[in-house]
Amino acid sequence: MRTHYCGDLNDSHDGQEVVLCGWVQRRRDHGGVIFIDLRDREGLVQVVFDPDRAEVFSRAEQVRSEYVLRIQGRVRPRPEGTVNPDLPTGMVEVLGLELEILNASETPPIQLDTHSADASEEIRLRYRYLDLRRPEMQARLRVRSQVTQAMRTFLDGQGFLDIETPILTKSTPEGARDYLVPSRTHPGEFFALPQSPQLFKQLLMMSGMDRYYQIARCFRDEDLRADRQPEFTQLDIEVSFMSEDELMGLMEEMIRALFQEVSGVELPNSFPRLSYAESMRRFGSDRPDLRVPLELIDVADLMDEVDFKVFAGPAKDPEGRVVALRLPKGSELTRKEIDGYTQFVGIYGAKGLAYIKVNEWSAKGREGLQSPILKFLPDSAVQGIMERTGAEDGDLVFFGADKATVVNESIGALRVKLGQDLNLMEEGWRPLWVVDFPMFEHDPNSNRWVALHHPFTAPKEEQLDTLEQDPGACLSRAYDMVLNGTEIGGGSIRIHREAVQRRVFKLLNISDEQAEDRFGFLLKALKFGCPPHGGIAFGLDRLVMLMTGATSIRDVMAFPKTQTAACLLTDAPSAVDENQLKELALRIRPRA
Amino acid sequence: MRTHYCGDLNDSHDGQEVVLCGWVQRRRDHGGVIFIDLRDREGLVQVVFDPDRAEVFSRAEQVRSEYVLRIQGRVRPRPEGTVNPDLPTGMVEVLGLELEILNASETPPIQLDTHSADASEEIRLRYRYLDLRRPEMQARLRVRSQVTQAMRTFLDGQGFLDIETPILTKSTPEGARDYLVPSRTHPGEFFALPQSPQLFKQLLMMSGMDRYYQIARCFRDEDLRADRQPEFTQLDIEVSFMSEDELMGLMEEMIRALFQEVSGVELPNSFPRLSYAESMRRFGSDRPDLRVPLELIDVADLMDEVDFKVFAGPAKDPEGRVVALRLPKGSELTRKEIDGYTQFVGIYGAKGLAYIKVNEWSAKGREGLQSPILKFLPDSAVQGIMERTGAEDGDLVFFGADKATVVNESIGALRVKLGQDLNLMEEGWRPLWVVDFPMFEHDPNSNRWVALHHPFTAPKEEQLDTLEQDPGACLSRAYDMVLNGTEIGGGSIRIHREAVQRRVFKLLNISDEQAEDRFGFLLKALKFGCPPHGGIAFGLDRLVMLMTGATSIRDVMAFPKTQTAACLLTDAPSAVDENQLKELALRIRPRA
Repeated sequence: MRTHYCGDLNDSHDGQEVVLCGWVQRRRDHGGVIFIDLRDREGLVQVVFDPDRAEVFSRAEQVRSEYVLRIQGRVRPRPEGTVNPDLPTGMVEVLGLELEILNASETPPIQLDTHSADASEEIRLRYRYLDLRRPEMQARLRVRSQVTQAMRTFLDGQGFLDIETPILTKSTPEGARDYLVPSRTHPGEFFALPQSPQLFKQLLMMSGMDRYYQIARCFRDEDLRADRQPEFTQLDIEVSFMSEDELMGLMEEMIRALFQEVSGVELPNSFPRLSYAESMRRFGSDRPDLRVPLELIDVADLMDEVDFKVFAGPAKDPEGRVVALRLPKGSELTRKEIDGYTQFVGIYGAKGLAYIKVNEWSAKGREGLQSPILKFLPDSAVQGIMERTGAEDGDLVFFGADKATVVNESIGALRVKLGQDLNLMEEGWRPLWVVDFPMFEHDPNSNRWVALHHPFTAPKEEQLDTLEQDPGACLSRAYDMVLNGTEIGGGSIRIHREAVQRRVFKLLNISDEQAEDRFGFLLKALKFGCPPHGGIAFGLDRLVMLMTGATSIRDVMAFPKTQTAACLLTDAPSAVDENQLKELALRIRPRA
Repeated sequence: MRTHYCGDLNDSHDGQEVVLCGWVQRRRDHGGVIFIDLRDREGLVQVVFDPDRAEVFSRAEQVRSEYVLRIQGRVRPRPEGTVNPDLPTGMVEVLGLELEILNASETPPIQLDTHSADASEEIRLRYRYLDLRRPEMQARLRVRSQVTQAMRTFLDGQGFLDIETPILTKSTPEGARDYLVPSRTHPGEFFALPQSPQLFKQLLMMSGMDRYYQIARCFRDEDLRADRQPEFTQLDIEVSFMSEDELMGLMEEMIRALFQEVSGVELPNSFPRLSYAESMRRFGSDRPDLRVPLELIDVADLMDEVDFKVFAGPAKDPEGRVVALRLPKGSELTRKEIDGYTQFVGIYGAKGLAYIKVNEWSAKGREGLQSPILKFLPDSAVQGIMERTGAEDGDLVFFGADKATVVNESIGALRVKLGQDLNLMEEGWRPLWVVDFPMFEHDPNSNRWVALHHPFTAPKEEQLDTLEQDPGACLSRAYDMVLNGTEIGGGSIRIHREAVQRRVFKLLNISDEQAEDRFGFLLKALKFGCPPHGGIAFGLDRLVMLMTGATSIRDVMAFPKTQTAACLLTDAPSAVDENQLKELALRIRPRA
């Protein structure tokens, strides 16, 4: 129906007759002539209709925004002075010779030209087909498609097989709530939508598939905080007979190829590796944003004897932590800004935000410092802080003192916020691996050990014998890939021996009966020659969000849902017939 | 952990030290030496353990079938006389120098060497991870992975974007029953799993995406006759501003590229096109297997006056049909074989199977024919039949006479069965397009018109004005791709005008209220500049089944379900906690 995309025209087409199909971005009448900006996936081009050609001109007069047109015309250079350097097609225009209105449009509730203000997200989701016409949204979905194709091409070249695993499956217990699907043929029973293909990919390794991948849809029925979606997509990978070093190297190669191919960006040749312990110590986080040149510095040993309970308490508590965070040139912060940061750390449970302004330490020593807490600190403590942080005149030092979890979360978040607010961030991409995670975390509520990753993660070989003696000290063979403060991938070497899997279940307080009921098929499969294996999963939505600079994962999905897990476009979920419920042996429970 | 795959070794590796990982296919002790056939994804290789190396030999003695081993060894030529030409690695063996048992195995319930008998399907599904170790199953999943990658590469090269559409969505009414997913955040309401991404891909065209594809999971909660699965996969495609001819041409190119790349097969350069009417007339089917060189020949006009109600009735009935099917050399069929075919057509509702054996027509005319029905047929009818079928001495002519639907189904099926039984099938691949389908079929039960494809299929442009006058005569812009008797793809140009969509809904007896409730979002979207568009979907499972020569789609899926939609491996579906039901505001209905 067409010869060219609108956005592909340039002066090499001068004089050619072309046929274009697209949408009316804008119609202007100027000096007796009609100008139509015609838009398709590749871009815009200006089409001109002269009143000389009366029939086609009068048809052009009927045209409104978002009408769908088929236009035959001749490409010509724009008259001098009307070239538009901002538009890739801006040196040419098309003289309209024929015009067919393929479809009309009502006035759209979203303005699609670049000058208009943004519509509300509700309108954008309800009229998603209009929102997606915006070049910005088109570009994001295009990047997404390029990313998955680049992943597939890389993995295909490495001998990976793309294998589909079921969507209608058994509950996989990974912490979150399952979406359930009632079975009609087995009344009263339910399938679950997978939270990930975890157990199936392990079964594929037991099936001898050796190298598996899948761009897999996953489902979690969680309350949608912040930026989550009930269904999301991951690049799911599993391999046999490969060490974590080999797998991590291969994955680095893949991510490098991806960035190179899709964004033309060169990532570092080898990603640094940080242990979980070091990452928490230096950044208060297991997904540190390395672009921020600030670090947490432990000062508890300087504080345990001071006469200031806010510091001395956590300093003496084995579960406490006291840190300093030096902010170069931070003494320029106003009282109001510091109050703002105090509120900010409060979100993470910090009860306050102590600080010292370093005005003239070099010349005046202690007298050159300014702080409400200074009076509590003996000289030795002040001296120690200044030495350890390396603070200089003009700097500011923040303090966090509380349970270690509170300090890590609050000062870790403050670190990133300061980086953003004060423009301290390095440019570009700073990937890393975080490794040596603990196997177990102690949950104080239930007084139980819980898996930091999932119950199929293998412990370090050298700790196998002593697993039960000190579960809290046991490290796992897990690894997370972190990029600019976002965890983009996580995985581990898995348990491949039945006895070890049973011991880990037991440590997690899963009884033999529960294990049999929920994981009986896995335990059985482990008896029949399971190879050593491991894998990783990358969050596709989040990765594409990073690569496109989008601020929400909803902006990199074609048809996302709202925070209450509804689709405003199709109006799902919705009521169903009594008959359908009967077939499924279900009844709606009256509200309590 | 390894240097080579087992199956990749050959005499170019002579003398090399290699490290292999894999499963024990077989252990034999012969002449004081231990032979282990080690298997991985790429194949088998023989490893030899000499009693000279006592430590490794004694470890090799512990090894049983399906143990997982890591072996270090040296490749060497096999001794003269022991070369195995049936094995790709058969000219070499590996002298085992080190052996590590990575995992043990209980005796597997499925024998994995090629000499053993096939296990029952129940055992195969329950121990799927063992069944999938068989080279045959591995090869099928590998072809499947190659097929999808070849599709993606082709479409990527043509500017198609891979876009994901939701799995949690609104009921799409395509005839089958939906799987429902209760919403927790909207109690009493349900999502449906998509029967196809049909409406979303149309919305993507309205979003200006221009060329879309997706390897999409689809769901139908049907009673699983024959070879269906509750979840299946299709290659889903939609384009804007393209005529059916262009799209069909592009899809031919894709399928050709696929067969070329994956199977090394050259499909014809241009697929023949048959109208639905012609296909039904000549083959009794809209998915004819063109490898069978037999055709249905209409003879009603010869029969309408004969004194034989079985023929004369259908011949005079406007809904009847009378056909002849000539079987060359068919007079060799025994009475018993003919009885068998009579039973066979009975499955499709035929009340009998008349026939004429052509013994010596050339010399003896009517006397040279042999048939129980001959006495009813006047000379003119006999003459007409013989001329029209071109039957020769030694042939046999079958007859079908009944309602056209019964004749088409029964004699159409007989045609294929004769082709298979008597080895009449041409070799190779015979693709074609079936086009010019009716828009509507009349459903005698409800006395309503129903859509032959789906309600979004566009009618032929030239029939747009007369849609309501004779719906039964209206043809659609639909097309099916058929390969060797299987419909592998089906699609259509869609309705892109709101008014036409409303008229079609009305003809299908969908009230305005129903239309608003179920398709309101589509009707609304059609108001805002919907481009002309169309698409197609290919059944991936069936296509891979054809390409691999598998006899069931369960053999080309990693984890299929049984005929009662259960997973024997994981034991899904299963009961859930009362708590989970409460959260979903559901109650199990007691059995009536």
